[in-house]
Order: sequence, then C-alpha cells, then structure tokens
Amino acid sequence: MLNDIDAEMQRRHIDGMVVLGDTTLSNPDLTYVVGGSLARGGIYFKRVSQSPLLLTSSLDIQKARKLGRVKKIQTYTDHDFEKLTMQYGRTEAYPRLINHVLKELGIEGKIVLAGRNDLASGIHLFSTLRTFGRDITGEASPTILEHARETKSSEEITKIRTVGTKTARVVNSVLDILKDAKRKHGHLWIGKKHATVGSIRKLIATRFAMENLTAPEGTIFATGGSSADPHSSGIPSAEIKEGRLIVFDIFPQSESGYWFDLTRSFTIGKADRKARHMFEAVNEAQDAALGLLRDGLPGDEAMSRACDIIERNGFRTLRDIYQRKMSEPASGFVHSLGHGVGLTIGERPYLTFQVKDRLRKGQVVTVEPGVYLPGFGGVRIEDTVTITERGYRNLSHVPKMLEL
Amino acid sequence: MLNDIDAEMQRRHIDGMVVLGDTTLSNPDLTYVVGGSLARGGIYFKRVSQSPLLLTSSLDIQKARKLGRVKKIQTYTDHDFEKLTMQYGRTEAYPRLINHVLKELGIEGKIVLAGRNDLASGIHLFSTLRTFGRDITGEASPTILEHARETKSSEEITKIRTVGTKTARVVNSVLDILKDAKRKHGHLWIGKKHATVGSIRKLIATRFAMENLTAPEGTIFATGGSSADPHSSGIPSAEIKEGRLIVFDIFPQSESGYWFDLTRSFTIGKADRKARHMFEAVNEAQDAALGLLRDGLPGDEAMSRACDIIERNGFRTLRDIYQRKMSEPASGFVHSLGHGVGLTIGERPYLTFQVKDRLRKGQVVTVEPGVYLPGFGGVRIEDTVTITERGYRNLSHVPKMLEL
Repeated sequence: MLNDIDAEMQRRHIDGMVVLGDTTLSNPDLTYVVGGSLARGGIYFKRVSQSPLLLTSSLDIQKARKLGRVKKIQTYTDHDFEKLTMQYGRTEAYPRLINHVLKELGIEGKIVLAGRNDLASGIHLFSTLRTFGRDITGEASPTILEHARETKSSEEITKIRTVGTKTARVVNSVLDILKDAKRKHGHLWIGKKHATVGSIRKLIATRFAMENLTAPEGTIFATGGSSADPHSSGIPSAEIKEGRLIVFDIFPQSESGYWFDLTRSFTIGKADRKARHMFEAVNEAQDAALGLLRDGLPGDEAMSRACDIIERNGFRTLRDIYQRKMSEPASGFVHSLGHGVGLTIGERPYLTFQVKDRLRKGQVVTVEPGVYLPGFGGVRIEDTVTITERGYRNLSHVPKMLEL
Repeated sequence: MLNDIDAEMQRRHIDGMVVLGDTTLSNPDLTYVVGGSLARGGIYFKRVSQSPLLLTSSLDIQKARKLGRVKKIQTYTDHDFEKLTMQYGRTEAYPRLINHVLKELGIEGKIVLAGRNDLASGIHLFSTLRTFGRDITGEASPTILEHARETKSSEEITKIRTVGTKTARVVNSVLDILKDAKRKHGHLWIGKKHATVGSIRKLIATRFAMENLTAPEGTIFATGGSSADPHSSGIPSAEIKEGRLIVFDIFPQSESGYWFDLTRSFTIGKADRKARHMFEAVNEAQDAALGLLRDGLPGDEAMSRACDIIERNGFRTLRDIYQRKMSEPASGFVHSLGHGVGLTIGERPYLTFQVKDRLRKGQVVTVEPGVYLPGFGGVRIEDTVTITERGYRNLSHVPKMLEL
C-alpha cells in the first residue's frame, strides 16, 4: 500500500525516489504515486519520510491538483525547463532538471529511479546523473513500488470490484445473447447471419463501450481448435457452431487505471464427453485452489494443488513440461495458476511453482487453471479474487456452466 | 526504417542490441523489431551485421513465427530458463539468460539495452550484466531504434493510412449524426434525450468497436469552457448546446500497433464572431504550416510560421508564454505544432521551437495548431500527414468546417 513506501525506503536505506514518464498510461508506478492519469506524465520526487513533490506540464497541473494524491505540485516551467532545453538540448536538460530538484529537496543519499521508460534512454539518464555525483541504484524485484502495489488498500479493492461488476455485466450479457440466439443445422444465427467470432467480438467491444471500459490488450473469444492455444485471441472468420468449445477471456481496464480478468469456457448446446471431462477437471482444480487461499499461504501450494487435480484427471501439467524440456505448446495445463491484478493485468503475486512467497491479505489475484488439447479445444476458468485473513472474496459474479 | 539499424549500430560502434519486455503492448521498440504483438513479449538479440534472434515464451512461439520478421526464434525453455530460475531465483535468472545468449552469439563489444521497462529493474539488470563483464551503455535520444522508427517504410505508411481511413469513417459518422440530430431550444436531441458529452462518447466508442480500433489513451470530446483546456477529455454530463465550441480529438490504435491522430473543432448551428475568428486563425495557421512541409525543412520553421499567423490574428503563442514564464494554462496557442505518429501517439519528429532537425521523407507527423480562450472555448485542427520529397500527403480525409 501507498503508506508502505516510507518504511520500504528506510529498510533499503534509500534517501530519494524519482518516478518518471511521459504519460501515466502503461506506466503503473507513475499512475500509482500520482493517483490517476496525467496525459503527459510527470516527475515525482520523494524524499524518505517527507511528503512528495510532483512536476508536471503546465497543461496537466489542474488535473494533477484534482487527483489530490500529491499536495505539492509544480510545473517544469517553474524550474526553467524550457531555458535549460534551449541551453543544453532536450537530452541533457532533463537530468539537469532532476538534479536541480534533488538539490532543492536536500536529497543526498541513495536514489532509485522508477517508472516505465525506454531502457536505452533510462540508462543514459542514470549515467548522466552519476556524472553529477548522484548515487543512483537499481532495485532487484520486488522494487519498492512493486512491494507497495502488491497489497491493495480498501479503496483500491473497491475500484477493482467496480471493474469486476462492469466486466460481469459484459460477460453475462454476451452469454445471454448466445443462449437466446436461434440455432439451426448446428449454426448459431444472430439477426440474419451466421454468428462468427468476429461478430461476437464486435458485440463485446460495443458492451465495453457502454460500460466505459477499454481492452488495450484485446479480448480472447476462441472456438474449437484455436481455443486450445491459450494465447490465440480467436479467428474472426470462424463460425460459432453447436457443441464446440469456446474460451471467452476478457481483461478490460477502466478509466481508474485498474484492470480485471475473467474467463469462462462453454459450448453452445450439448458438449461431448471429452469436453465435459476437461471442464470438470478444470472446475474442480479451480475450486480446490480457491479453497486453499488465505493470508499466509505460499503461492506455489495453490499451483501445486491445481496440478494434482488436473494430473489425477489424466492431463499433463507444467510439471511434466518442465521435466521433458518441451519447447512447443503442449497439451494439458500449460501455464501458471494465476497472477496479481491491479494497475497492470499481470503483476505480483504470482501463483506458480517458482514463487514461494506467502500470500497476504489485500492482494488481488486471478485463479485460472486450464486444460488444452491441441486440435480439439481448451477450457479455462478464471476469477479475480482478493485474499482475506481466512480465505478469499470473489470480486465478480458470473456463473460457471459448460453448456449454454 | 528497420534496415537503418545496422548502419546506426556501426556508426555508434555498438556490437549488440538487446530489446526486451514482458509484453509488446506499450512497448513500441519491441513491437517494431518483432513485427507485431506478442502477448508475453520476448527478448530480441541483434549482433551488428547479423540476423537477429528472438526468445519468446513457448506459448507465443507460433505467433512469433507467423509475424515473420525475425527468422531465428527460440524459447526460454530452449535455454533452460526454468532451471536457472529454480537455481538463482527470478531476478538473477534473467540477466544470466541474457548473458548466456550474448555469449552464444559471440557479442563481446558495446551493448545497448532497449524496450520500455521499469527503470528500477532495468538499472538492476544493467548493473548485473556489468558485473558479468558486459559493456552496456545507455543512449542519448535519438536512440538507435528511435532513429530507425522515425522514418516509416511504405509498408508502415500503408498501415497508418489504413488506421486513418478507419478514423475518418468514425469522425465523419459522428459528425453526420450531430448534423442530423433534432435541435430544439438550443439543445441537441438524440432519440428522446438531450445529447451530452457522455452520450456522444459512447457513440464514438461503439464506432471504434465496429472499426476494430481501440483508444487506449481515451478520446477528447470537450464542449464550451472545457474545450479551452487542451487536455480536458470533456465532462460527461455536459450538454451539447447550439453555438458552443466543441473540440473532437481522436487518437485510436489499431491491432497493427499503429496509431492515428485527428482533431476537428466546430459548433452545432451558428457560431458567434469570436469562435469564427478563432477558427479562421487556426485554419489559416494549419494551411500555412502544411504548405511549408517537405523533405529538408527544419521542424521549428513550421511551428514558427503557425505562431506568426496566430499572433497576427491577435492571440498569444508559446513564444510569449516562455518569455513571461507563465506556469498556469494561458490563453492562445499553448502547445507545440505537432509530433510524429507511428507505434506511439507521440514520437520523433517534433514540430516545436526546441527542435531544429530537418524533416525527412517518410516521416509521419501531426499538424495541429490551436487557440484556447479560458472560460470561452478552444479550436484545434489536426491532420496526420506524411512528408514527401516536395511536400506532404494527408493520410485521411475529413472536411474542415466550423458550423455543422
């Protein structure tokens, strides 16, 4: 949480933190410290145990004040940035501006730089600040801000739940349309046309628009063979046919900057025995993994439990895949169980074998086992939940059912 | 262009380039070198004068092959990344993987890292690779990839024009709806309701969905006083009323990764004399700036010409604002004339006072003068064009008119 930052800076002996970027969009650390979106980004300065200072463009200062998270806000012009640019050129003016503000704030010790930026320019900035005598250091993951962002405040959980409610409305309305659509000779009809993946995707996009959600990373609506590839977003021309597996995975972002992640897998009309077996294995694995979640659980235990159940149902899992050193997409449960959700769609904590960290109250994670059979289809079931003292709370409500 | 990379590496005495990221989304350098989107990103290795190598997740390898830009593709598993992770932990396994591949490729000299990443982790990666004896260096802007991306290939211009055609369809269809809407007592009616900024924004979002466009950075539809703030996206509850200035600025991204940027400003019904004066000044400034564009023109000259015309019409420009050191949003032409568009919505070249670089054939830029009067309203007119040998070509077609 935001107020963990000071304790983490002290623990790591960091005197100053500078978070920067030319936009807050796709710059979650900057969005987090400024409290929302700023079209042209900014430079956030924090001295340990002191309140932060934000520098923005004069075009964004009113918006920055409205966000309210940082009280002390100034513009680049207040620090003569345009004059520095005229004198030293754009590239050198920027580190000079930062150095000048660090001086004003009395920051003398170790400094970390943060925020998503191009590494080539970022390393140049780092080197230039070093030549000014600044003691800049990198951070092994989890960085101070990854650590702070990993556990959500109740205000953040409310924001994520709001996205969850909207996401559930989108999914439920699409499922309703699919249920109600006319079926004839194995085809699904919407209006006077065969329903295709492309037509459903437009429908989903329209529902997103109505809910004021965007899908910067796309939407997965994949049917039949392409549903067996966990990262195929679906083939627009593919027809929706009765009995074929469909994987519907949506991960929208709201204007608040927060994301949500939810997947349902189903067939239109009757599923065959194989699809049912896959669905039941995945559903059982999800329930079992969810049942383990609580403050203090090592994240790999939930992954391990999901694999046990999927293996017991006769499918492969990542365990086999690692051991056999396969590099091609294989069959079975070929990805991790889950990941954190917040200002990004994939962040700490991770529910996977390599991570033994214990889950903590207030974290928000996906739980998304899946089974994929190349050439046949896939089933993945995913919810986004928050960890509580003794269990978890689901942040949306969409029924899990195989046959529509 | 892509094939400038080798010459730039040679010119800068760079032996190897590593472009990395955990997704291609909002990572334009990585999108550029791999030729499209990869859900989980990857690590791209390039030794000077040799063909590149791409490492991806096994989940993304088929997609990476389909993109076709990099011929030699391997997975993390091919290089035992999971075992490295088990042995050294996630943070140290990553630089070890990179170091091992650099060795295999025989890269011994200067290396640049690129791609949008968190700076704290990026600097840590940099430092770790240095402890392995690697000679990593930062790059002052323009980096090798900024330089390459700045001039578009004809294939890229075709992609941007495709986004432009779709964008024009969205804008023209919204303008048609506004023109045809019933007007009564100064209000605009759509269906049985007063039209608001919010209802028009949903309409725009629906049109985006139909065109398969997304708007990760939002859409500006601002009316009256809020149109005077160049970065206000508009107040959803504001009613659309006759005679008020509206700024409609859209900047969608297509699945290809390429963006487009277009602004029209207008009134519903009759405009008053002040609005007309603003519109005519801005329109004249745009035409004059466009008229200068050609291969070889210093970018600041177009900015300077636009300011001359706007000042001659009695408005302030950035020239005054710099001189008076104003930090609050002021009136007049308060931003730069334009910026490059490609895999980002704001990149080199910049049409502004501080940049004297000459424009080059194949660059794609916005030309977007504006005049803003706080409390009254704003006018901005923007097109995205490509620079040619002797002039420019507009990449979309939307009429410029003040009164709908």
